[in-house]
Amino acid sequence: STGKAKYQAPPVAHYNLNNVTVTPKPLENRENILVLTPMARFYQGYWDNLLKLTYPHELITLGFILPKSKEGNQATTELQKQIAKTQQSGPEKDRFKSIIILRQDFDPPIQSQDEAERHKMHNQKRRRAAMAKARNSLLFTTLGPATSWVLWLDADVVETPPTLIQDLASHDKPVIAPNCFQRFYNEEKKAMDERPYDFNNWQDSDAAQDLAKKMGPDDVLLEGYAEMATYRALMAYMHKPDGFRAETVPLDGVGGAALLVKADVHRDGAMFPPFAFYHLIETEGFAKMAKRLGWQPFGMPNYKVYRYHAQI
Amino acid sequence: STGKAKYQAPPVAHYNLNNVTVTPKPLENRENILVLTPMARFYQGYWDNLLKLTYPHELITLGFILPKSKEGNQATTELQKQIAKTQQSGPEKDRFKSIIILRQDFDPPIQSQDEAERHKMHNQKRRRAAMAKARNSLLFTTLGPATSWVLWLDADVVETPPTLIQDLASHDKPVIAPNCFQRFYNEEKKAMDERPYDFNNWQDSDAAQDLAKKMGPDDVLLEGYAEMATYRALMAYMHKPDGFRAETVPLDGVGGAALLVKADVHRDGAMFPPFAFYHLIETEGFAKMAKRLGWQPFGMPNYKVYRYHAQI
Ligand SMILES: Nc1nc2c(ncn2[C@@H]2O[C@H](COP(=O)(O)OP(=O)(O)O)[C@@H](O)[C@H]2O)c(=O)[nH]1
Ligand SMILES: Nc1nc2c(ncn2[C@@H]2O[C@H](COP(=O)(O)OP(=O)(O)O)[C@@H](O)[C@H]2O)c(=O)[nH]1
Ligand SMILES: [Mn+2]
Ligand SMILES: [Mn+2]
Repeated sequence: STGKAKYQAPPVAHYNLNNVTVTPKPLENRENILVLTPMARFYQGYWDNLLKLTYPHELITLGFILPKSKEGNQATTELQKQIAKTQQSGPEKDRFKSIIILRQDFDPPIQSQDEAERHKMHNQKRRRAAMAKARNSLLFTTLGPATSWVLWLDADVVETPPTLIQDLASHDKPVIAPNCFQRFYNEEKKAMDERPYDFNNWQDSDAAQDLAKKMGPDDVLLEGYAEMATYRALMAYMHKPDGFRAETVPLDGVGGAALLVKADVHRDGAMFPPFAFYHLIETEGFAKMAKRLGWQPFGMPNYKVYRYHAQI
Repeated sequence: STGKAKYQAPPVAHYNLNNVTVTPKPLENRENILVLTPMARFYQGYWDNLLKLTYPHELITLGFILPKSKEGNQATTELQKQIAKTQQSGPEKDRFKSIIILRQDFDPPIQSQDEAERHKMHNQKRRRAAMAKARNSLLFTTLGPATSWVLWLDADVVETPPTLIQDLASHDKPVIAPNCFQRFYNEEKKAMDERPYDFNNWQDSDAAQDLAKKMGPDDVLLEGYAEMATYRALMAYMHKPDGFRAETVPLDGVGGAALLVKADVHRDGAMFPPFAFYHLIETEGFAKMAKRLGWQPFGMPNYKVYRYHAQI
């Protein structure tokens, strides 16, 4: 102890959650955005796209969580290199308000990020549960009293409109997801093409409800498996090339590739269930939980973001 | 912008959640404790008892959430007065690391804190849902990367052993609740006496499970109502005057009067469901959620804390 005279009174912060606005015009109202990314691999395209976002970077806090695997260590090194470049020697306007990097203190159940292995149905429930816990750790640890919006952005999303945050927020929805596509080289057309990538954005169906009814209490419905035909209306297939870009549709399940959430939805308690919640898990369970709390999720079928694709 | 030379690089924090220890000896390992209190009324006895806790205050962060009602405004004023006294002019050892005060940005459904009105069964579900949201807001907004333990302590708890934190943590349980009693003047004995107060700490029963099975999906089981006999084993009644003080028993439901939780339990996603979760709500739903996540709650029937009682 340093004696009375030198003693610094510890901080007392007083926050009025009502004074933290959450509006369709976050930029004008200088609202704080928390961008959260669970990251197993580092993609340069992700970072480059992040830098191009026109929402004022001084209002953006970045939060990352990376697994403690060999791959996670590698990704952490690459991420830190880019952070140092941007925050220390990059143009001022590129620099973010603050950055938090967390390392995941549990082993990811599947080490391989190999696509075929990752997507095997029997691996999915364990994988999604681990992902849900990673998202929850990141969320519970980084959300602060001044946060207005949380943008979930997966590490493999490498292309979005630069006005992503403003565009999504302008609809004033509690939860809103763009449509995630992937570019690829179409061998038939001998040209670049694109295809829908994220199948977790959907509207529920009677068939899926019937499947759920026959399931055990801990079983989860998974989308995109022939052996479990849900007949849900997938936002991936609602996309119309000439469709109205600002169109919104209500959703019952959402994906996490890109997802804007009002911070109050999370503060009410909406998290990513790592267990079967109405037979749904992770981001799809989150959508259900938001609905149970009175917050309706929406999607934008004609507003696209792109997933990483290998160069040809 | 103030020009390159003057520019301060924004903060980059790097946390390894593995390095934040959570041990049975938090004091020796200088672990950070977050004490969270939803507060509708300010009791001087609560603050006086808090000051007497022997866990080093420089490792304790306090978080409060108060409703935006007339009563909540009054409580905020009284709380701030005591905080100023302790943090600015009190002895150094009394001062806490930091203090966060949140004001609740939704109306509490029942304005009156009158006991009879508060406990009416048909008011309970709405009341508990509002309390759950208040607890979630407080938790999601204040939990940080350095937090090892969260101590939930209700504003009407006015007497605990000064070693409360060390004692509860020493059992190394993910979730642990002491037994909440209330002192009162026993007219028959013409002397002070005490009685069990908190009925939310319990072990489940077949009767309660059978009741649950007959309920609608949104119905919740409530404890302590004759019209809904659950026959659960209540920790309140497990207390033995000469019993072993350090005894622990597994619990299926917990109350929030006093409750020590490993921060990782919350980080995994365990929150206070404001909706029916396995027909449970708020703190009782939290216990169920912790169990679903693999964390077993415990209680200490012979370790007592005391709820406020009116002076005679
Ligand atoms: N922290 C963490 N992030 C992960 C883990 N597995 C995947 N991710 C990240 O989580 C996001 C979603 O995972 P991904 O494999 O892309 O899922 P998919 O696109 O649905 O197949 C991506 O940003 C990944 O980099 C993990 O075990 N821990
Ligand atoms: N923020 C907030 N706190 C509340 C509200 N209602 C009660 N509390 C506090 O929450 C805790 C539990 O409530 P209490 O009325 O004591 O519940 P009981 O002991 O189970 O009857 C106490 O610390 C109260 O002061 C509310 O509407 N908002
Ligand atoms: Mn992905
Ligand atoms: Mn109480």
